[in-house]
Amino acid sequence: PPCTDFDMAYFHSYAHVGIHEEMIKDRVRTETYRAAIMHHQQYIAGKVVLDVGCGTGILSIFCAQAGAKRVYAVDASDIAVQANEVVRANKLSDTVIVLHGRIEDVEIDEEVDVIISEWMGYMLLYESMLGSIITARDRWLKPGGLILPSDATLYIAPITQPDRYSESIEFWRNVYGIDMSAMLPLAKQCAFEEPSVETISGENVLTWPHVVKHVDCYTITRQELESVTTRFKFKSMMRAPFHGFAFWFDVEFSSPEIFSNDNNPPSSVIESPNEHPTNGSQRKKRVNPNEALVLSTAPEDPPTHWQQTLVYFYDPIEVEQDQQIEGAVTLSQSKENPRFMNIHLEYASGGRSFVKESVMR
Amino acid sequence: PPCTDFDMAYFHSYAHVGIHEEMIKDRVRTETYRAAIMHHQQYIAGKVVLDVGCGTGILSIFCAQAGAKRVYAVDASDIAVQANEVVRANKLSDTVIVLHGRIEDVEIDEEVDVIISEWMGYMLLYESMLGSIITARDRWLKPGGLILPSDATLYIAPITQPDRYSESIEFWRNVYGIDMSAMLPLAKQCAFEEPSVETISGENVLTWPHVVKHVDCYTITRQELESVTTRFKFKSMMRAPFHGFAFWFDVEFSSPEIFSNDNNPPSSVIESPNEHPTNGSQRKKRVNPNEALVLSTAPEDPPTHWQQTLVYFYDPIEVEQDQQIEGAVTLSQSKENPRFMNIHLEYASGGRSFVKESVMR
Repeated sequence: PPCTDFDMAYFHSYAHVGIHEEMIKDRVRTETYRAAIMHHQQYIAGKVVLDVGCGTGILSIFCAQAGAKRVYAVDASDIAVQANEVVRANKLSDTVIVLHGRIEDVEIDEEVDVIISEWMGYMLLYESMLGSIITARDRWLKPGGLILPSDATLYIAPITQPDRYSESIEFWRNVYGIDMSAMLPLAKQCAFEEPSVETISGENVLTWPHVVKHVDCYTITRQELESVTTRFKFKSMMRAPFHGFAFWFDVEFSSPEIFSNDNNPPSSVIESPNEHPTNGSQRKKRVNPNEALVLSTAPEDPPTHWQQTLVYFYDPIEVEQDQQIEGAVTLSQSKENPRFMNIHLEYASGGRSFVKESVMR
Repeated sequence: PPCTDFDMAYFHSYAHVGIHEEMIKDRVRTETYRAAIMHHQQYIAGKVVLDVGCGTGILSIFCAQAGAKRVYAVDASDIAVQANEVVRANKLSDTVIVLHGRIEDVEIDEEVDVIISEWMGYMLLYESMLGSIITARDRWLKPGGLILPSDATLYIAPITQPDRYSESIEFWRNVYGIDMSAMLPLAKQCAFEEPSVETISGENVLTWPHVVKHVDCYTITRQELESVTTRFKFKSMMRAPFHGFAFWFDVEFSSPEIFSNDNNPPSSVIESPNEHPTNGSQRKKRVNPNEALVLSTAPEDPPTHWQQTLVYFYDPIEVEQDQQIEGAVTLSQSKENPRFMNIHLEYASGGRSFVKESVMR
C-alpha cells in the first residue's frame, strides 16, 4: 500500500525518544523478549533474522548476542538512524544491517530464518504492526522458519471499576459542599466516550475472559484483520456494578511443531490440575521450561506499558451473582483514519440491551 | 483584540471536563481561593462581583455564599453552559449571571466592586488570563474596588535534579547490558528542548529564588506583559550538578491599603526573626491571620496542579559551594502562536557562558 500522510505522522511520532524509553523500561516486555530469544537460541545462532519495526535496535542486538549470522533491522521511523548508531557503537555493523524504510519498500536479497517483532499495539490491534509482519513473512520467511512471537490472543471481559467511576463522576455530586450534578452528563461523555488505557487489577474483572481473536502469526492474513467480530456470553461471578469491558492480550513464543514435538509432551499432560484455571498464562511461564514463553498484559499479571484498554458505559449496570451478560463486539478500521479503530459493542443483561460505539484515536 | 483561531482552539480545550476536575481537585488552589473569599467577606457581602474565566462557576458560587449581591461569571469556553446549569441547580440564578463570551465582548451594565479570577497559567504567564483581568479592571472596576488576587510574583532559581537526568539520559549508557550512548544527543534534545512541567522539592533548589516579575493587579498593563526581562545573580549554597532553572509563582490576596492600614501593623513588625527566610510565603499564611493569604506554587510548599516549570540544560554544570551563577531571562510572546511563550536564558558560571532558547507550546 502507498505511504499515506497518516503513516508519515505515525512514523514521525516514533522518532521521539520518550516512546522508546517507555517501551525499553517496560521490563516485562523487554525481558520476556530477551528470554524468548535466548530460549530459541538454537533457531537463531548462525541464522538470518529479520526484526520488523526495530526501534532503537535492542531486539536485533539480543539476536546478534544469541549468535545470529545476520540481522536485518527495519524501521520506517527516523529512530532507525539512532539504531544504526547504536549498532555501530557496539561494533555489530557486520551482523546487524539497519534499513530505514517501510517493510513494504525495503529490499532484502535473501530469505530469512526468523522474523522477530514487537508489533503489538494497545488492545493488541490498535496501531499494531501486524500487517507488516504478514508482509515480511510472505516476502522473506523460509518455509519452516520461525516467527517470534508465534501467536497472539485478544481477550474481553466485563469489569467493575467503582473507584474510577466515583472519582470522575460521583465526584461532581458534592464539590466543596456545592451540588454540581449538572456536570454529570458532560463528565460522563468526557470520561467515557472514548476507550481509556489504564491499569486495572484481577479484582476488577467480573468473570473469565472471552477470546475476541486468536492470531496465528504463521497463517494470519490482512483480510482477517479488517474486521474482527465475536459473540460473547458471560456469567458474573459476583454482585457488582458492571462498568464496562476491558480488553487485553497475550502473545506466545512457541517453537514450530516440527522442532518441538520430539522433545515436548503435549501441554495438556503437564498442566497441573490443582492450579486455578485463570492462571493459564503464568502457568505456562513457570511450570515447565520447555513450555511456550508468554508475554501477558492481563489484569492479574504484572502491569506493562500496554496496561488494559477499557470501554466504559455512561451508567453502570447492577448485576447479581450468576447474572448473564451477552452480546457481541466488532473491531474495525476507522474510515476517518485507517490507524484509528472502531469498537462496536452490543450487550444485554437483566433484560435490557445496549449499544456502545467508540473510536480509539 | 479580535478572536483568533488560536483563541478558538484554546477556549474549546477548556470545554473538556477533565481540566476543570483537575483544577477543582487541586485543594491548595481551591481552598486558598475559598479562604480568600471568606476572609474578604466584608468587601463582598452586598456587593457586585465579576469572576473572570469562571469555568464551572465554583468561585462565583463561593462569592454568592459570601453574600454577594450579584456575581457576573464570564467564560469564553463552552464550560459556561455547564456553569449556568450548576448555578440554576443551586437556585442561584438570581445572584449569579453567567455570560458566555470573551471578557472583551460581553456587556455588563454596571460597575463592579470586586474582580475575582483564577487566571494564572504555568509559570504564571503561560496561557494566563491576566490580559483579561486588565480589560475587566479597566472596563468595570469601581475606584477603590478589590481585585483577588491582588499581586502575583514569578520566581526563578537554579536547580539540581540528578534523578530526572539519570532516568532520562544516563539510562541509555547501559540498557540491559547494551551501551546505547549513541542515543544520548537525541535523548537530551527530546527531554530538554522544551520546558517541562514537573514537581520538584525544596531540596532541588540551589539557592534563594530571584523575582522575575512582580505583578500588581491594580496597575499592571498589557504592554508590561509583552516582554519581561530580568538579570539575576545567584550564589549556589552547595556543591552540585546544576541542571537548569525552575520557575514558580505565588499570588497574594491582600486587601486594598485604604482598608487595611488602620488595623494592621506593617508586616515587618510581626515577622518572626527566628524563622527561616525562605519560608516567607508560609509565614504570611500562618503567623498572623490579618496578613495576606498566599497561594504558593513553590517547591518547598505543598504541590499544586501548576507544579513547577523547569528549563533543563543539555549538560549539567558542576558548581562548587558559593560559586556564582549570573545571567538574564526574557519571557516573550511567540510570533508563531501568541499563546506560546519564548524563554530566552543567558547564564554564566565558572568562566563559561551559555544561551538556552526554548518555547513553551
